[in-house]
Amino acid sequence: MKIATFSNTRTAVAAEKGLNAALTTSFMSGSIMGLTVVSLGLGALSALLLIFQNDSIGGVAALTGFGMGASTVSIFARVAGGIFTKAADVGADLVGKVEEDFPEDDVRNPATIADNVGDNVGDVAGMGADLFSSFVGSIVASSVLGFKDYGYAGIALPFWISMAGIVAAVIGMLTIRTKEGATQGELLNVLRRGMFVSAIIELGFMAVIIRVLDLDWSLYFCLMIGLAAGISITFWSEYFTSSAYAPTRRIANSGVFGPANVIIAGLSVGSSSTIGPVLIIASTLIAVRALSESAFGIALASTGLLSILGITLATDAYGPVADNAGGIAEMAHMPPHVRQNTDALDALGNTTAAVGKGFAVGSAVLTAVSLLTTYTVRVGINTTLDPINSKYFIPGVLVGAMLPYAFAAATMGAVAAAAGSVVIEVRRQLKEIDGLREGREGVNADHARCVSMVTGAALYMMIPPALLVILSPLILGIGLGPDMLAGTLLGAISSGFVLGGMMNSAGGAWDNAKKMNEKDGQKGSFKHKSTVVGDTVGDPFKDTSGPAINILIKLMSYISVVLVPVFRHQEDYWWASLIIIGVVVLATPLYLQMCPEGLKDEDRIAIFTKKEEPVSGVYAKVEQQEQPEYVVAEAEAAPKETSLSQV
Amino acid sequence: MKIATFSNTRTAVAAEKGLNAALTTSFMSGSIMGLTVVSLGLGALSALLLIFQNDSIGGVAALTGFGMGASTVSIFARVAGGIFTKAADVGADLVGKVEEDFPEDDVRNPATIADNVGDNVGDVAGMGADLFSSFVGSIVASSVLGFKDYGYAGIALPFWISMAGIVAAVIGMLTIRTKEGATQGELLNVLRRGMFVSAIIELGFMAVIIRVLDLDWSLYFCLMIGLAAGISITFWSEYFTSSAYAPTRRIANSGVFGPANVIIAGLSVGSSSTIGPVLIIASTLIAVRALSESAFGIALASTGLLSILGITLATDAYGPVADNAGGIAEMAHMPPHVRQNTDALDALGNTTAAVGKGFAVGSAVLTAVSLLTTYTVRVGINTTLDPINSKYFIPGVLVGAMLPYAFAAATMGAVAAAAGSVVIEVRRQLKEIDGLREGREGVNADHARCVSMVTGAALYMMIPPALLVILSPLILGIGLGPDMLAGTLLGAISSGFVLGGMMNSAGGAWDNAKKMNEKDGQKGSFKHKSTVVGDTVGDPFKDTSGPAINILIKLMSYISVVLVPVFRHQEDYWWASLIIIGVVVLATPLYLQMCPEGLKDEDRIAIFTKKEEPVSGVYAKVEQQEQPEYVVAEAEAAPKETSLSQV
Repeated sequence: MKIATFSNTRTAVAAEKGLNAALTTSFMSGSIMGLTVVSLGLGALSALLLIFQNDSIGGVAALTGFGMGASTVSIFARVAGGIFTKAADVGADLVGKVEEDFPEDDVRNPATIADNVGDNVGDVAGMGADLFSSFVGSIVASSVLGFKDYGYAGIALPFWISMAGIVAAVIGMLTIRTKEGATQGELLNVLRRGMFVSAIIELGFMAVIIRVLDLDWSLYFCLMIGLAAGISITFWSEYFTSSAYAPTRRIANSGVFGPANVIIAGLSVGSSSTIGPVLIIASTLIAVRALSESAFGIALASTGLLSILGITLATDAYGPVADNAGGIAEMAHMPPHVRQNTDALDALGNTTAAVGKGFAVGSAVLTAVSLLTTYTVRVGINTTLDPINSKYFIPGVLVGAMLPYAFAAATMGAVAAAAGSVVIEVRRQLKEIDGLREGREGVNADHARCVSMVTGAALYMMIPPALLVILSPLILGIGLGPDMLAGTLLGAISSGFVLGGMMNSAGGAWDNAKKMNEKDGQKGSFKHKSTVVGDTVGDPFKDTSGPAINILIKLMSYISVVLVPVFRHQEDYWWASLIIIGVVVLATPLYLQMCPEGLKDEDRIAIFTKKEEPVSGVYAKVEQQEQPEYVVAEAEAAPKETSLSQV
Repeated sequence: MKIATFSNTRTAVAAEKGLNAALTTSFMSGSIMGLTVVSLGLGALSALLLIFQNDSIGGVAALTGFGMGASTVSIFARVAGGIFTKAADVGADLVGKVEEDFPEDDVRNPATIADNVGDNVGDVAGMGADLFSSFVGSIVASSVLGFKDYGYAGIALPFWISMAGIVAAVIGMLTIRTKEGATQGELLNVLRRGMFVSAIIELGFMAVIIRVLDLDWSLYFCLMIGLAAGISITFWSEYFTSSAYAPTRRIANSGVFGPANVIIAGLSVGSSSTIGPVLIIASTLIAVRALSESAFGIALASTGLLSILGITLATDAYGPVADNAGGIAEMAHMPPHVRQNTDALDALGNTTAAVGKGFAVGSAVLTAVSLLTTYTVRVGINTTLDPINSKYFIPGVLVGAMLPYAFAAATMGAVAAAAGSVVIEVRRQLKEIDGLREGREGVNADHARCVSMVTGAALYMMIPPALLVILSPLILGIGLGPDMLAGTLLGAISSGFVLGGMMNSAGGAWDNAKKMNEKDGQKGSFKHKSTVVGDTVGDPFKDTSGPAINILIKLMSYISVVLVPVFRHQEDYWWASLIIIGVVVLATPLYLQMCPEGLKDEDRIAIFTKKEEPVSGVYAKVEQQEQPEYVVAEAEAAPKETSLSQV
């Protein structure tokens, strides 16, 4: 986040020189994030392996514990970060764009800084933490299962592959450059070329490693299939979210029938978009099982998919930098060609963000399936689990399939409640601070209060979904035993995969449908306004609930693997658990009656802003940094009608 | 449907006399439907049993074949019916209410008759066919599994229970009467009383039957738990969809922040609403498994749940009769107190419809789980299926979880495309038919053309979802074997349960949130208009895609049970199926590029109205009957501003 916030001003300055300078500056900033994630993950795991090299039981515990820790922290970054970013974004837009007709990123809007901070919190920190836990998870699962099948060579394989992946990613990154005035298609090809270069080099490394470790060539094909699956999913995601193809165009055109049709069309497109990734991952699982004859193949496929994470993450992480650079250009009134260059990169970032999300979901599912297998092996039910005659397995799958919905409900409700509070605060400031709306010299909005409120809301509202993820496997595993938990994990993985995929694609498609209508000069028309509704619904879909479901399925799997000793009991307290289930059923309406979404606005705001002073630490610093003084002085001169997001 | 269309005029006339007369008339009409469904189902199954009494293999084939037939026909009624009803409704509202400011059911709107016909097609025929297949399915599964465990007594049990249920339902129906001027709460209590009377009598019958057949009392508790689960789910559904409670009120209030917040709040409420039914059904499955020690308990629980279907279906089926009676009162300009009485019954019908959908989902899941168990027993994998080490089971669950989404995408897309065509046709008629908009004497809208177009659209657009349901188990079962199919069924049941439940509740809650804002005198305000968007999105949710998912999970299970001999192969063509999967992945975007939703409006309309004359048969007759001549003559006198749906 620090690098990203440093780089956004630099990208804005570089954009004065030209498109290539801006691309390389922002992409290098993203690369730091990509390489940091893989290096930290690999370094820490290697250190643990070194410490526990003579203690295989302790080693497994240490590796899985590390993974669980990584996954737990990613709840904070992905869930709280997701709530933060979208509460600020939706709140800022609802007043700024709809009520006041401010341009995007206008400094008079008290929620603008919170919105810009949110881009970093959600897209940089959230994405990084999410894929860090996938990356660690795939290596942990491969080494635990690999040791079982191939001894030390089985442990070495995922580590060496990932290390080679870092080298391949760096080589790929060096190919990223573009000519001035490049079109979107050309820019996208630049990034694709980088990814393909890395993938091909990595495939070469993989062959060498398999040869050196003297392992089966079938394992090579498992790695290759994983990598190919990841790349196929990104193409599929692009088809469903890019305005170059039929699905998004259909959403954009359905705007003539009003917002309801846009929503229906978007949900329909989002639901169709799950067909490809599910079939790709399912056939990957079948193929690697057939090739490796064991669960090790699945873990290897996920290692293969994540082996070039350094560059895929860089492709994703540069987006918010370019987006914020545009915001800075707007606030600092830099020349128009600066904003044109940053807007070109920002639009590209929207496509790569959707693509990156597809990659994240695919990796989360493969990682979670390997962890599920690891769990059944460790708990000792991998050969005895009888899905049909077990009392618990099928009910477990049903309950598991429900958990992503409960989780999505909590996160969407959180965004709605927090955004509502932001709207009230922004309206209050515009009313009470004299001269703010007109942008009078020396009059500043109280940006800090918005940042503080959104921070409070995000931290407060992440508690219920976090508890859901952490407590569900504990209660079900301890109360109803390992069969129930296996079913729950499987249900959560399968249902979360499709629900998350649907939300990511629908959100991306709505966003691009709106942009398409703006580009066609429809801005302000009924058709365009209808797609704005879709985009606003899509915001929590694609940046809060959808990606957070990755965390749900991975963290639940980790908890199950780590706490295996607790679940290994044989007694059957089924009646006691029915009582717990009954209590949950009765308590849910009670909770819904009393939760923050149900409170009165003033009560909710009081909870979110318990501290009246701005929060200390990173957010407050970011906030100061992004608001240089000379901006406000010039704000008066800003033409009120121009909206650069039209470009 | 015939009784329902005869009864709606009679209910309108009875409503002139009073509320009680209208209630009993419409409820008796619903009772005919309820009793017909259970009697036909039980009668036909008994006849089959009589014919095949000495041929147990042929008997099982005949019973499951009958169930599969019932389920296949219900695709037509639920899917095509659902597309019909909502295409007409959304199309009529988009022009009539939004563009032209016509009151609801105004005869000048060319899509009004199609809308009224749709209520019968979707809510009467669709609901009846859906629960007919559940009812038959529960008896078939119980008798197949019961014969295995308890011989002929095991077959007799579900038949006797269901027969006793008819008697109990009739007794409950006789208690349905109300006083004049009853409130909504009192009316709801009248229906609840009827259901409780039936349930208590049925519990008594069950005890007698268990005693006479000399079976374990544990089976009695299985039946009782099933019945209790059904009733608990109805209470839970009521909480989430009635405007008396927090969730719906929150949606209504979120209207002040605009339509996007209404959609987010509704999806959040819909997702929360899945918690209860899933936990109730999961604990039911655990408890009956613990009590009966075999899959027979699950089938019995679903028989218990459906035993008083006669009265629950009557409660549901009277709704569209009251709704249409209101439409007739409006079109025939009957005195205002008539419309007040029918509106009271119609509002009650909205609540009972949501409740009935909860009941339908619960029964579909229990039926499908018993069919899944029957399938594994018949295909011979009930003891050998190894979910973790099987190549196919986990991929099967993933693919299964995706199918409800693909199905929902197809049905939602169908409604959007068909409604768009209706909008264009209605606009055309209002423009081209001179004097129609003003309601000039002797000028009629071409209602027949709208009915014909919606019929054509529904029949044409039901093909892709129907093929999906029928071909998926065939391709997966034949290509990848019985493990894959078992996984697919389990994935589809679990994911369909939550997706369908979410759609039903969100749709019902949006509808009631809109009604609540209308009652509070907010009609026409920004807050109200925002909730209208929610209601329009909710229409295909609650009346097309949501309920149709019941059919998906039941029909797939039936096909698997019936075609067991085809799936029992041992050879492993996994690579061939990967090719098929690859083809599907590549063909989906191609299909989306070319499907009717993607066509130009005129081309799509040409497909839907291949025959230029109105369709013959039941629709055309209904259409003539509901449009008595004296109505149009009076239409000119209609005050343009009054909208009775405000009441």
